[in-house]
Amino acid sequence: MEDPCVEETCGVAKAVRVLDGKWTVRVIRGLLGGTRRFSELRSSLEGISPKTLTDRLRALERHGLVHRELYAEVPPRAEYSLTARGRDLAPALVALAAWGDKLDA
Amino acid sequence: MEDPCVEETCGVAKAVRVLDGKWTVRVIRGLLGGTRRFSELRSSLEGISPKTLTDRLRALERHGLVHRELYAEVPPRAEYSLTARGRDLAPALVALAAWGDKLDA
Repeated sequence: MEDPCVEETCGVAKAVRVLDGKWTVRVIRGLLGGTRRFSELRSSLEGISPKTLTDRLRALERHGLVHRELYAEVPPRAEYSLTARGRDLAPALVALAAWGDKLDA
Repeated sequence: MEDPCVEETCGVAKAVRVLDGKWTVRVIRGLLGGTRRFSELRSSLEGISPKTLTDRLRALERHGLVHRELYAEVPPRAEYSLTARGRDLAPALVALAAWGDKLDA
Protein backbone atom coordinates (compact mmCIF):
# COMPACT_ATOMS: atom_id res chain seq x y z
CA MET A 1 0.00 0.00 0.00
CA GLU A 2 2.96 2.32 -0.60
CA ASP A 3 1.77 3.72 -3.93
CA PRO A 4 -0.40 6.85 -4.19
CA CYS A 5 -4.09 6.39 -3.45
CA VAL A 6 -5.72 7.20 -6.78
CA GLU A 7 -9.51 7.34 -6.69
CA GLU A 8 -10.18 4.68 -9.34
CA THR A 9 -7.58 2.08 -8.36
CA CYS A 10 -6.97 2.47 -4.62
CA GLY A 11 -8.64 -0.37 -2.71
CA VAL A 12 -9.05 1.74 0.41
CA ALA A 13 -10.70 4.58 -1.56
CA LYS A 14 -13.08 2.19 -3.30
CA ALA A 15 -13.99 0.53 -0.01
CA VAL A 16 -14.61 3.87 1.72
CA ARG A 17 -16.88 5.00 -1.10
CA VAL A 18 -19.17 2.03 -0.49
CA LEU A 19 -18.90 2.04 3.30
CA ASP A 20 -19.04 5.79 3.97
CA GLY A 21 -21.25 7.24 6.66
CA LYS A 22 -22.06 6.65 10.29
CA TRP A 23 -24.29 3.61 9.82
CA THR A 24 -23.22 1.55 6.81
CA VAL A 25 -20.54 -0.51 8.55
CA ARG A 26 -22.80 -1.02 11.56
CA VAL A 27 -25.61 -2.35 9.36
CA ILE A 28 -23.20 -4.85 7.78
CA ARG A 29 -21.98 -5.83 11.24
CA GLY A 30 -25.60 -6.45 12.25
CA LEU A 31 -25.95 -8.96 9.40
CA LEU A 32 -22.71 -10.87 10.05
CA GLY A 33 -24.62 -13.20 12.36
CA GLY A 34 -27.00 -14.25 9.57
CA THR A 35 -30.39 -13.35 8.07
CA ARG A 36 -32.36 -10.67 9.90
CA ARG A 37 -35.79 -9.08 9.58
CA PHE A 38 -35.92 -5.29 9.34
CA SER A 39 -37.24 -5.02 12.90
CA GLU A 40 -34.53 -7.32 14.29
CA LEU A 41 -31.83 -5.36 12.52
CA ARG A 42 -33.26 -2.07 13.69
CA SER A 43 -33.37 -3.10 17.34
CA SER A 44 -29.72 -4.21 17.14
CA LEU A 45 -28.69 -0.71 15.96
CA GLU A 46 -29.31 1.67 18.80
CA GLY A 47 -30.49 5.08 17.59
CA ILE A 48 -31.03 4.35 13.89
CA SER A 49 -34.23 5.72 12.33
CA PRO A 50 -36.36 3.47 10.09
CA LYS A 51 -35.72 5.81 7.15
CA THR A 52 -31.94 5.71 7.61
CA LEU A 53 -31.96 1.92 7.93
CA THR A 54 -34.08 1.62 4.77
CA ASP A 55 -31.75 3.97 2.89
CA ARG A 56 -28.61 2.13 4.03
CA LEU A 57 -30.08 -1.28 3.13
CA ARG A 58 -31.09 -0.04 -0.34
CA ALA A 59 -27.61 1.36 -0.95
CA LEU A 60 -26.02 -1.89 0.22
CA GLU A 61 -28.33 -3.83 -2.13
CA ARG A 62 -27.28 -1.57 -5.02
CA HIS A 63 -23.62 -2.22 -4.22
CA GLY A 64 -24.22 -5.95 -4.09
CA LEU A 65 -23.44 -6.43 -0.41
CA VAL A 66 -26.95 -7.17 0.86
CA HIS A 67 -29.69 -9.47 -0.45
CA ARG A 68 -33.34 -8.75 0.30
CA GLU A 69 -35.81 -11.63 0.28
CA LEU A 70 -39.50 -10.68 0.15
CA TYR A 71 -42.15 -13.07 1.47
CA ALA A 72 -45.71 -12.60 0.17
CA GLU A 73 -47.37 -12.76 3.55
CA VAL A 74 -49.89 -10.44 5.16
CA PRO A 75 -48.30 -8.14 6.15
CA PRO A 76 -45.44 -8.67 3.68
CA ARG A 77 -42.20 -9.69 5.32
CA ALA A 78 -38.67 -8.85 4.18
CA GLU A 79 -35.50 -10.55 5.32
CA TYR A 80 -31.97 -9.25 4.78
CA SER A 81 -28.73 -11.14 4.49
CA LEU A 82 -25.19 -10.51 3.32
CA THR A 83 -24.11 -11.62 -0.13
CA ALA A 84 -20.71 -13.25 -0.62
CA ARG A 85 -19.26 -9.78 -1.23
CA GLY A 86 -20.77 -8.57 2.03
CA ARG A 87 -19.51 -11.58 3.99
CA ASP A 88 -16.04 -10.98 2.55
CA LEU A 89 -15.91 -7.85 4.71
CA ALA A 90 -15.90 -9.93 7.91
CA PRO A 91 -12.09 -9.96 8.39
CA ALA A 92 -11.89 -6.17 7.95
CA LEU A 93 -14.81 -5.63 10.35
CA VAL A 94 -13.37 -7.94 12.97
CA ALA A 95 -10.05 -6.07 12.79
CA LEU A 96 -11.84 -2.72 12.95
CA ALA A 97 -13.92 -3.79 15.94
CA ALA A 98 -10.82 -5.01 17.79
CA TRP A 99 -9.19 -1.65 17.20
CA GLY A 100 -12.32 0.29 18.19
CA ASP A 101 -12.73 -1.74 21.36
CA LYS A 102 -9.50 -0.23 22.64
CA LEU A 103 -10.66 3.38 22.12
CA ASP A 104 -12.32 5.39 24.86
CA ALA A 105 -16.10 5.59 24.44
CA MET B 1 -19.97 -9.46 17.27
CA GLU B 2 -23.46 -10.95 17.73
CA ASP B 3 -24.59 -8.52 20.41
CA PRO B 4 -26.37 -5.22 19.64
CA CYS B 5 -24.15 -2.35 18.52
CA VAL B 6 -24.60 0.19 21.30
CA GLU B 7 -22.94 3.56 20.65
CA GLU B 8 -20.69 3.61 23.72
CA THR B 9 -19.48 0.02 23.75
CA CYS B 10 -19.55 -1.21 20.14
CA GLY B 11 -16.03 -1.39 18.73
CA VAL B 12 -17.23 -0.87 15.17
CA ALA B 13 -19.24 2.23 16.16
CA LYS B 14 -16.30 3.71 18.07
CA ALA B 15 -13.95 3.05 15.16
CA VAL B 16 -16.34 4.61 12.62
CA ARG B 17 -16.69 7.72 14.77
CA VAL B 18 -12.95 8.32 14.53
CA LEU B 19 -12.54 7.21 10.91
CA ASP B 20 -15.66 8.75 9.37
CA GLY B 21 -15.53 10.68 6.11
CA LYS B 22 -14.13 10.31 2.67
CA TRP B 23 -10.49 11.07 3.51
CA THR B 24 -9.60 9.96 7.03
CA VAL B 25 -8.80 6.34 6.22
CA ARG B 26 -6.88 7.38 3.12
CA VAL B 27 -4.73 9.81 5.13
CA ILE B 28 -3.89 7.01 7.58
CA ARG B 29 -3.09 4.72 4.67
CA GLY B 30 -0.75 7.37 3.31
CA LEU B 31 1.22 7.30 6.59
CA LEU B 32 1.49 3.51 6.88
CA GLY B 33 4.74 3.65 4.92
CA GLY B 34 6.36 5.94 7.48
CA THR B 35 6.91 9.63 8.24
CA ARG B 36 5.74 12.08 5.58
CA ARG B 37 5.88 15.81 5.02
CA PHE B 38 2.60 17.58 4.35
CA SER B 39 3.46 18.03 0.68
CA GLU B 40 4.43 14.36 0.26
CA LEU B 41 1.22 13.23 1.89
CA ARG B 42 -0.83 15.61 -0.19
CA SER B 43 0.65 14.42 -3.48
CA SER B 44 -0.10 10.80 -2.53
CA LEU B 45 -3.80 11.65 -2.03
CA GLU B 46 -5.22 12.56 -5.40
CA GLY B 47 -7.84 15.30 -5.19
CA ILE B 48 -7.48 16.33 -1.54
CA SER B 49 -7.41 20.08 -0.82
CA PRO B 50 -4.77 21.50 1.55
CA LYS B 51 -7.54 22.61 3.93
CA THR B 52 -9.11 19.16 4.04
CA LEU B 53 -5.76 17.48 4.62
CA THR B 54 -4.97 19.95 7.42
CA ASP B 55 -8.37 19.35 9.01
CA ARG B 56 -8.02 15.57 8.81
CA LEU B 57 -4.49 15.63 10.24
CA ARG B 58 -5.60 17.85 13.14
CA ALA B 59 -8.52 15.52 13.90
CA LEU B 60 -6.24 12.49 13.77
CA GLU B 61 -3.82 14.24 16.15
CA ARG B 62 -6.69 14.96 18.55
CA HIS B 63 -7.70 11.29 18.46
CA GLY B 64 -4.13 10.21 19.12
CA LEU B 65 -3.53 8.46 15.79
CA VAL B 66 -1.10 10.93 14.25
CA HIS B 67 1.99 12.66 15.65
CA ARG B 68 3.16 15.99 14.24
CA GLU B 69 6.81 16.95 14.56
CA LEU B 70 7.67 20.60 13.94
CA TYR B 71 11.16 21.60 12.84
CA ALA B 72 12.20 25.22 13.48
CA GLU B 73 13.59 25.81 10.03
CA VAL B 74 12.96 28.62 7.58
CA PRO B 75 10.37 27.98 6.31
CA PRO B 76 9.14 25.80 9.21
CA ARG B 77 8.77 22.15 8.33
CA ALA B 78 6.25 19.69 9.75
CA GLU B 79 6.42 15.92 9.49
CA TYR B 80 3.60 13.54 10.23
CA SER B 81 3.73 9.96 11.41
CA LEU B 82 1.36 7.40 12.89
CA THR B 83 1.35 6.79 16.63
CA ALA B 84 1.14 3.23 17.97
CA ARG B 85 -2.66 3.58 17.96
CA GLY B 86 -2.56 4.64 14.32
CA ARG B 87 -0.23 1.81 13.33
CA ASP B 88 -2.58 -0.63 15.09
CA LEU B 89 -5.05 0.07 12.29
CA ALA B 90 -2.78 -1.56 9.71
CA PRO B 91 -4.43 -5.01 9.78
CA ALA B 92 -7.91 -3.50 9.35
CA LEU B 93 -6.71 -1.28 6.51
CA VAL B 94 -4.96 -4.12 4.72
CA ALA B 95 -8.15 -6.20 4.94
CA LEU B 96 -10.25 -3.24 3.76
CA ALA B 97 -7.91 -2.57 0.82
CA ALA B 98 -8.01 -6.23 -0.23
CA TRP B 99 -11.80 -6.10 -0.21
CA GLY B 100 -11.93 -2.77 -2.06
CA ASP B 101 -9.49 -4.01 -4.70
CA LYS B 102 -12.12 -6.50 -5.82
CA LEU B 103 -14.82 -3.84 -6.30
CA ASP B 104 -15.42 -2.18 -9.65
CA ALA B 105 -13.91 1.27 -9.87
